[in-house]
Amino acid sequence: MRQYPRPLNKLINELSKLPGIGGKTAQRLAFHILSLSDREVSALAEALTYAKSNLHYCSVCGNLTDSDPCSVCADESRDRSVICVVETPQDVLAMERIREFNGLYHVLHGAISPVEGIGPNDINLKALITRLQGESEVEELIIATNPNIEGEATAMYISRLLKDTGIRVTRIAHGIPVGGDLEYADEVTLLKAVEGRREI
Amino acid sequence: MRQYPRPLNKLINELSKLPGIGGKTAQRLAFHILSLSDREVSALAEALTYAKSNLHYCSVCGNLTDSDPCSVCADESRDRSVICVVETPQDVLAMERIREFNGLYHVLHGAISPVEGIGPNDINLKALITRLQGESEVEELIIATNPNIEGEATAMYISRLLKDTGIRVTRIAHGIPVGGDLEYADEVTLLKAVEGRREI
Repeated sequence: MRQYPRPLNKLINELSKLPGIGGKTAQRLAFHILSLSDREVSALAEALTYAKSNLHYCSVCGNLTDSDPCSVCADESRDRSVICVVETPQDVLAMERIREFNGLYHVLHGAISPVEGIGPNDINLKALITRLQGESEVEELIIATNPNIEGEATAMYISRLLKDTGIRVTRIAHGIPVGGDLEYADEVTLLKAVEGRREI
Repeated sequence: MRQYPRPLNKLINELSKLPGIGGKTAQRLAFHILSLSDREVSALAEALTYAKSNLHYCSVCGNLTDSDPCSVCADESRDRSVICVVETPQDVLAMERIREFNGLYHVLHGAISPVEGIGPNDINLKALITRLQGESEVEELIIATNPNIEGEATAMYISRLLKDTGIRVTRIAHGIPVGGDLEYADEVTLLKAVEGRREI
């Protein structure tokens, strides 16, 4: 016996393909899984295939959903004059957590990154343009891409693209996080915070 | 949309039950899984149920196996006069990796720990005694439990239990690991290394 029995090896191999799971962790997980009841293991296995086969991207906004259009796009009570543009479905949830935004979303599934060879056509941008042409009620586009080079480039690109359409394109504010400490803020953030100062 | 669609929530929930996988990691894994192809996801799901339904403990030595008796116990070329007692199936593999030991194994699935309320009856010890009574050819028992309090207690317990049976009970040596540094060795290990010194 120079190695584990085949079913165990196979499981370890499959688990170690997951991001952040190395050989040792995969082994630990595999042994844990073997210690579970049959029912618990099938629950995990079923959750995998169930999620994979029942989730897809909303045909309108690109958000992850099990219905089409997604619950946000289908919600008649939401303000259809504002669309918040984000990079990922996770960002949609982050926005929803503030319980303040009542508009619609558009998920780009990435950001423009010349370094990584990701251009405007590689993200879900064309669908946004088509969507804006179709829905004349949109008045504002809030660009909530991440505050890094790629996110800024994407924001800039979109704002230029829509310059003459009459749609207001806004960008979420940069600044010191609430509860943060000025002493530990990096210079760029602090500069952005000063630039974005408001009267109180 | 205050939370992810149900299939995704279910998957995140199942993944976060695994040891060392918190909510954030489960979320990251779930999104990674959704980005895989249908085939890759079913491979992972199948590996889970396949391993769970095809692996069990060897009825002789308690090692994890997909056959019964396990490949080691069934191997006629192995020395049946020596049994190496280990705590876990992982330890069997560690022993096999040295490519020197050609005897049989006995997996205890734990160690005696009064603190955690684990007594001799809570580990796979009774089977070892029954096995020794049945197999008269066993001459030596190498106790390779971990060099910690529980492992030492277990080694001590087994050696006392077999005192009058004529079976030689030995314990693997403690000492400085090969490639280790004396400067960084703890006192107890160094003491054990000195105590276990040999003529060269």
